[in-house]
Amino acid sequence: MRMNDVLDRWAEEGGRRGAMRRILRALKNTGDFWEVVALSEETVPEVARAIDFLGSQGLVAVEDDVIKWKVDISGELDAIPDNLCPRCGGRGVLPRAYVGLVDRFVKIARDRPGVKRDYDQASMNAESVWARVAFIEMRDSLKGSRILIIGDDDLTSIALGFTGKPERITVVEIDPELTAFIEGVAERESLPIETVTLDIREPLPEDLKRSFDIFSTEPSETLDALKVFVGRGISALKGEGASGYVGLTRREASLPKWQAFERMLLDDFSVVITDVVRNFTEYTHWGYFEETRAFSLTPVRTLPKRPWYHSYLIRFELLDTSRGFEEVYTEDFYSDEESSTT
Amino acid sequence: MRMNDVLDRWAEEGGRRGAMRRILRALKNTGDFWEVVALSEETVPEVARAIDFLGSQGLVAVEDDVIKWKVDISGELDAIPDNLCPRCGGRGVLPRAYVGLVDRFVKIARDRPGVKRDYDQASMNAESVWARVAFIEMRDSLKGSRILIIGDDDLTSIALGFTGKPERITVVEIDPELTAFIEGVAERESLPIETVTLDIREPLPEDLKRSFDIFSTEPSETLDALKVFVGRGISALKGEGASGYVGLTRREASLPKWQAFERMLLDDFSVVITDVVRNFTEYTHWGYFEETRAFSLTPVRTLPKRPWYHSYLIRFELLDTSRGFEEVYTEDFYSDEESSTT
Repeated sequence: MRMNDVLDRWAEEGGRRGAMRRILRALKNTGDFWEVVALSEETVPEVARAIDFLGSQGLVAVEDDVIKWKVDISGELDAIPDNLCPRCGGRGVLPRAYVGLVDRFVKIARDRPGVKRDYDQASMNAESVWARVAFIEMRDSLKGSRILIIGDDDLTSIALGFTGKPERITVVEIDPELTAFIEGVAERESLPIETVTLDIREPLPEDLKRSFDIFSTEPSETLDALKVFVGRGISALKGEGASGYVGLTRREASLPKWQAFERMLLDDFSVVITDVVRNFTEYTHWGYFEETRAFSLTPVRTLPKRPWYHSYLIRFELLDTSRGFEEVYTEDFYSDEESSTT
Repeated sequence: MRMNDVLDRWAEEGGRRGAMRRILRALKNTGDFWEVVALSEETVPEVARAIDFLGSQGLVAVEDDVIKWKVDISGELDAIPDNLCPRCGGRGVLPRAYVGLVDRFVKIARDRPGVKRDYDQASMNAESVWARVAFIEMRDSLKGSRILIIGDDDLTSIALGFTGKPERITVVEIDPELTAFIEGVAERESLPIETVTLDIREPLPEDLKRSFDIFSTEPSETLDALKVFVGRGISALKGEGASGYVGLTRREASLPKWQAFERMLLDDFSVVITDVVRNFTEYTHWGYFEETRAFSLTPVRTLPKRPWYHSYLIRFELLDTSRGFEEVYTEDFYSDEESSTT
């Protein structure tokens, strides 16, 4: 069988050729399910479906929790080479001025409350937090800035506070245990952080609207959640010249969903995308993983051995015509057919 | 005077606050006009206008070809820190497998015909070409691929050919001297490259349509040129799952123009943007620079001392709904009010 035949059959079943090509490529690198998800950048349900399809065609089989080629049709593709820069891990930035602060941050973050499944929490590692600080301060002046963080299980507010530059950092967060923790750290360390305990489906308090230079969020990946998290952030920005930083993964968002999100940014919110950096953010393994849909969908019973969950960092900037989202939103928005880690 | 007063006055004259903030920030780093353009990422005409405006407000003056603060209102902003990774220069990738090939490439590229102003030519440096190869092969399998290059004064076709992986590389290029050079190298080095000498305003030959897995171009930055270069490339791709790589600078394209281009990608061409990597590509100084509008616009009479002209690398992927541009285009499209190096 030629690869094109496989792609044709997959397309007949409604699959995307691009997705299958990436999955076949990743299967040249590894038989580990989670590595295939990470390398192919397709969603967990999509990769599970693809492995199932390839199995039904007699091309692969899962043996001892490893995906093995039965008939190797991948000869027409390269494996995915590791061309990432080993120094910065592909992020392109290093927080060189803050090496000492990173250690202090890690020590404090050790005592944070555990992540909560109810709020779709999962936190990025400290390296990713500080890379984000390094990235933001190249694009936007931190000095004297007002920064809004929507959802802060990563404690980005504390890292930004440690730089000593922002005038004010406001954390909007649903989890009172987390806001209490952040408040405590801010007080002990004299950081200019205030917290607002709020379900982001509620509109922001009036005094936060049109107040910020920068906002940052790592939202849930359903389109409704993206609209609410990002739209609220935009409504909190001062207007033209202010900027937003959003983490978006491909682990729970396919390229068609990415396109819908990008159209939301450009057409609904009228912002301009200035940066899209692949796998900028690496997540730590979270405690409730074995209870997730991701785990129930996999054809293997093994847990990830290495970090496999990353998000891209997307920066956008507001123009004169930009506008956010200020309505009340009352639906549940944590799950759709592509989500798997909620 | 407070910075906000300056931003207000600038906005009254139709300027963008974001642009002025970036220019003020860059002026904290340097008084060199070209460095200010590079750091602020605003267009040459915009930076020239901003310096003129700041001069009219008595805030800066140009003395001995250096921009100097007269009243420093930049205290509310940070200078732009150099947080770029020193190993990869911020690109995030390294062509580690190809170190030997890079030298061979540089040697060959030395004999290329000079860049021609008539075709808005200017070529990226070899490091950028090979970083692009490293980037592409992580995202898309080069093995057995068919690749289209529209405009190849950078000789990307030769670098891709050197990897030994693509099945066929097709160069569409207006300049017969350049296609002859590429053909000569391809023959001597046995590379699978074919060239088509064509003004891209003409539709592509029928046999190139819907034929390619990957296309790459570094277009002129007017919106019409972007539509033609990129739209033709998309029409040459096989469809869903195929991908395009486009260089876009901010030196000749403001953020409002970027937004228009992104809307073109999403709404007119219905592709999905997967990567936007800042200043991925560095251009070499080109011979006709002193004849350009950029040079006539500057408030200084000095030539750039260091590379100042970069482009972002934008990758997009086709979905089922994607479509290109196949009509005849007859207008001149090399210049608009933001262009300055044609």
